[in-house]
Order: sequence, then C-alpha cells, then structure tokens
Amino acid sequence: MSRRIILLAHGSSDKRWCETFEGLAQPTLDAVPDSLIAYMELASPSLQSVISDAAKEGVTEFSIIPLFLAAGRHLRKDVPAMIRELEQSLGVTIDLGAPVGDNPLLGFAIRDLVQQQVSS
Amino acid sequence: MSRRIILLAHGSSDKRWCETFEGLAQPTLDAVPDSLIAYMELASPSLQSVISDAAKEGVTEFSIIPLFLAAGRHLRKDVPAMIRELEQSLGVTIDLGAPVGDNPLLGFAIRDLVQQQVSS
Repeated sequence: MSRRIILLAHGSSDKRWCETFEGLAQPTLDAVPDSLIAYMELASPSLQSVISDAAKEGVTEFSIIPLFLAAGRHLRKDVPAMIRELEQSLGVTIDLGAPVGDNPLLGFAIRDLVQQQVSS
Repeated sequence: MSRRIILLAHGSSDKRWCETFEGLAQPTLDAVPDSLIAYMELASPSLQSVISDAAKEGVTEFSIIPLFLAAGRHLRKDVPAMIRELEQSLGVTIDLGAPVGDNPLLGFAIRDLVQQQVSS
C-alpha cells in the first residue's frame, strides 16, 4: 500500500531516446524503494499503465517527478489533464512535482560535467 | 582568441522556461571561463548571434554542450544543420557535444534530489 514514486519522461519511438532516460533513472531506481520510470507518450510503460497496474495492487498514492529540465506545455497542461483523469477513474491521489531542472543539484551537476569536458 | 563554451538550450516564448535554463546554466557560467548560454530557437540570445558576435572578435573555436536530457530530432538533425551553415559562413569550427543527460553525473543528481524530496 506504499506510495509509488514515478520518474516521468517524455517518450519517443526512437529506442536511443528511451535508453538515455533509462540510464538517467537507474541510480534512482536502485536507491529509492517503490520508484519506477514511465513515459508520457510514444513509449512504454505509459504513465496510465504504471498507475493503473499499481492501483490494482491497492496503491492509492503516487508522486510524479518529471524527468524534464523545464516546464513547458506538457507539464503545465497535458500531464495535469492526464492526472485528473487517472485520479477520477481510479480513485487515487497523484502529486505532480517540479521538473528535475528546477532543483539546484542539476545545475551543479551540469557545472561539474562541463568542467570535466573542458579539462579533458 | 580562446574557445567559447556554449550551453545550448531549446528556447521558448515563455519567460519561465528560459529562467529555468538560466538558473541551470548559472553555476557553469560562474565557474567556467568563456562559457555562455544560447538558445536554439524562440528565445535570445540565439546560437547564431552568439557565434557570429564571437567570430567578429576573432574567436574561431566553439564547443556546444546541449542542455537537453536526450538527443532527439533537434540534436540529431536541426542543430547539426545550423552548425554546418555557421561553419561555412563564418569560417569557424564548432564541436557539438553529447546532451548533458548522457553524463552519469546527471543520473546521480536526479537520485539525490529524489531522495531529498522523498524524505522531506
């Protein structure tokens, strides 16, 4: 009955795109219990399938952490609409967090990788 | 005559989008000499203006580090085409790096921020 943490990526029909997001998610999936990855569109598992599968197991609370650098139309409109529909049809509670790029840790990681590349 | 490091973001007409990328870039801009931010489209400064301004000052080498989590059509097609045009018209050399999401440091930062949020 525990809460699920969903790392939500934009999907793509290009397998390489999804592989990058799977790589980005892996350290979190290894370290954070009940975390999983899902895609907004064009790839599986979809957000809908991940939430409805967990709801069938009795999970009622979900936190979505968007693997997006910034919030555009998808995070301001499309995903909130998907969430409202899932909450109504499944009777679950879904919290939509800020995109990962809003967290200062990302800016520090970008600085570190640029310094790595510049000095190599 | 030094090389310029360009953090390239996708732009948007939404000011909040650009503010997020400016925040993401700031630690790098503070720490890495000759680094700056530019946008692919819909915001300024554009990639073209940043490179042509520097070329006028005599800069001939540029490294682009894409502030993108993964490579889609923009980084596989649109940006390389922009680069070819700039190299030909300005006589400069432009290296296009991997998107920041390809670097394991980003996955670790995402894990750390998820752990922060989950425990708060």
